[in-house]
Amino acid sequence: MNKSDLNRHSNSGEHLSTVQHTDTVETTIVQLFDEKDPFVLESGQSLAPVSVAYETYGKLNVEGTNAILVCHALTGDAHAAGMDVKGRIGWWEGAIGRGKAFDTDKYFVVCSNFLGSCYGTTGPTSSNPATGLPYGRSFPTFTVRDMVRLQHHVLKHLGINRLVTVSGGSLGGMQVLEWALMYPDFVETIVPIATSARHSAWCIGLNEVARLAIENDGAWGQGNGHSEPERGLALARMIAIISYRSRASFEQRFSRNQTTGGAAHDPLFDVESYLHYQGEKLVRRFDAATYVAITKAMDRHDISRGRLGLQETLNTIKAHALCIGIDSDVLYPVVEQAELAAHIPNAKYAEVRSIHGHDAFLIEFDQLNRLIKDFLKEVG
Amino acid sequence: MNKSDLNRHSNSGEHLSTVQHTDTVETTIVQLFDEKDPFVLESGQSLAPVSVAYETYGKLNVEGTNAILVCHALTGDAHAAGMDVKGRIGWWEGAIGRGKAFDTDKYFVVCSNFLGSCYGTTGPTSSNPATGLPYGRSFPTFTVRDMVRLQHHVLKHLGINRLVTVSGGSLGGMQVLEWALMYPDFVETIVPIATSARHSAWCIGLNEVARLAIENDGAWGQGNGHSEPERGLALARMIAIISYRSRASFEQRFSRNQTTGGAAHDPLFDVESYLHYQGEKLVRRFDAATYVAITKAMDRHDISRGRLGLQETLNTIKAHALCIGIDSDVLYPVVEQAELAAHIPNAKYAEVRSIHGHDAFLIEFDQLNRLIKDFLKEVG
Repeated sequence: MNKSDLNRHSNSGEHLSTVQHTDTVETTIVQLFDEKDPFVLESGQSLAPVSVAYETYGKLNVEGTNAILVCHALTGDAHAAGMDVKGRIGWWEGAIGRGKAFDTDKYFVVCSNFLGSCYGTTGPTSSNPATGLPYGRSFPTFTVRDMVRLQHHVLKHLGINRLVTVSGGSLGGMQVLEWALMYPDFVETIVPIATSARHSAWCIGLNEVARLAIENDGAWGQGNGHSEPERGLALARMIAIISYRSRASFEQRFSRNQTTGGAAHDPLFDVESYLHYQGEKLVRRFDAATYVAITKAMDRHDISRGRLGLQETLNTIKAHALCIGIDSDVLYPVVEQAELAAHIPNAKYAEVRSIHGHDAFLIEFDQLNRLIKDFLKEVG
Repeated sequence: MNKSDLNRHSNSGEHLSTVQHTDTVETTIVQLFDEKDPFVLESGQSLAPVSVAYETYGKLNVEGTNAILVCHALTGDAHAAGMDVKGRIGWWEGAIGRGKAFDTDKYFVVCSNFLGSCYGTTGPTSSNPATGLPYGRSFPTFTVRDMVRLQHHVLKHLGINRLVTVSGGSLGGMQVLEWALMYPDFVETIVPIATSARHSAWCIGLNEVARLAIENDGAWGQGNGHSEPERGLALARMIAIISYRSRASFEQRFSRNQTTGGAAHDPLFDVESYLHYQGEKLVRRFDAATYVAITKAMDRHDISRGRLGLQETLNTIKAHALCIGIDSDVLYPVVEQAELAAHIPNAKYAEVRSIHGHDAFLIEFDQLNRLIKDFLKEVG
């Protein structure tokens, strides 16, 4: 199943900026690896062939050195910028394009759908060549490092020899950190946003209740791949949406408004309707087994795994880093990005001020563009 | 069903203080109202008879004027202090007793299980006299004001003519505020803790996902009252537990520890085991229909409903107030208690410093005792 034909450009689908592109963009799917030379995962399991969906914006120079990679988050996809043939705007359109942080007049910007997702890259919804059926819950265990290693293959395939920067928020930022550690000579600078060096107990807990929402759904229990645990996936999303925002933003937007009916003594609050709407919206564009698998990969994220201690590992990063926190983020609070900046040798910390919580990395483009442009100018 | 024979003294069952009482305490159940004179709810529906479970500590003076009422939270009960015959310690033992905030040498302290709960007071697990079966999901809609009005009947039954103070945290604090508004001549002072004047959109959202966890459980769908949606109730509790604590407390306690097994590439984190344990623990002592009904009552909480505006309503409160916030509370953040103190005419605000988040009102007894004792001395 590939649900890429449905709206999914930001967590809420709101706060979109105006598109400046005149041509529509298309997602390309490339097939890599084969039975003789499979893609071997960190777990030791292997996959072949592996499809990867990606988009590019701007032009690669002849040296292959003006590229920028942007990494998407949990339910994101390769459509980061521009408008596709169906009129859908990319999830980071506000930061990619002429004069923006990732200036397509200067840079060749790439975004690829990561391993294990359901938007064109091999993942739980793909067919298992051994059975001819979708992998579903039997998809091999994968990690953020596997995602990054696959992205590296795609970039080599595209003729890229060096990345001016790698950037992304949330799970995107986890990939950014692994990029700097796994390919130190490939990456000039990094811009991790609203992310952490290793998934915290708080985030693991929130992921676990979201997974349990899916696993408690009777359709998951059947596990036949024919019926989707839609109510469970919707609930998982509703839990996540609360954590992506902030108490203040909910209060500002919904307070105790009840415009949608409900009995006099049993009101239906707007915030409830909103959460249900967001849950149902994800069900139309995402897959439950994929959600479970990716959240597990997030929980495995720990840059120190198999390396040095956490601080020592950060200390080995060669790339110049701009670590961006969001003051109202309750999921990946600013202490986590400050920690990155404190231990990466050539790093600075910057803070986005926003009421929107974690989701601000998909919303506050004025601040992001200013911070990132200044940083790239400074280190360029 | 009455599950009061199981451990339920704090959200986590931890951080208990040493019991100073030598006698064991017992919960008394009183039956009030009858068919001719039923208890009429805010919704217009009525109940008769109504059972109320309560405990008392200390001695009432002959004037009936040295009483203190403590109000429990969502899954609490009347056993607030001392040790019962089964060795269980009260949920606010740390604040009730000789020399503590609510000094039983001076005061007659009362705690009653509120309307709609499942620990001896009439609620969804009680038999509906009309059918002889438990009310379950058909239990009438009730509000915090209904809880308070029923408590007032119990206090009159006990010969109490005046309350030195009313105190409680979370939903307990919502009752405290309604006490000051509904019985201004009965209440000398109030000590609302980690609570709000009206339930916020953020809290409503968290309650709604908890309810949906229960409603998504197949056993709830059957709705026959014979099978309990145990997995759903456990998940509801797990979601709540995350919100009762703080990211920092989870990080301090669990970090990424994995002492409980799990495959090399599919670790089971301690925080996951802990949340599952807490979920299962609640299932053994609570009821799903009760959980849904009480969270709905919390969402209805709005002191301005049918009164003046919010600030104007707070402005009518005559009782002296000590409004206590907890600096790490993400559920009822300090701005909400500061708002109370800003608009109640004779109020002051105090802040508990704690890593434990919302649950600190069940943990930080040194700070609570000091603040409340000073306040009662000052206004006494």
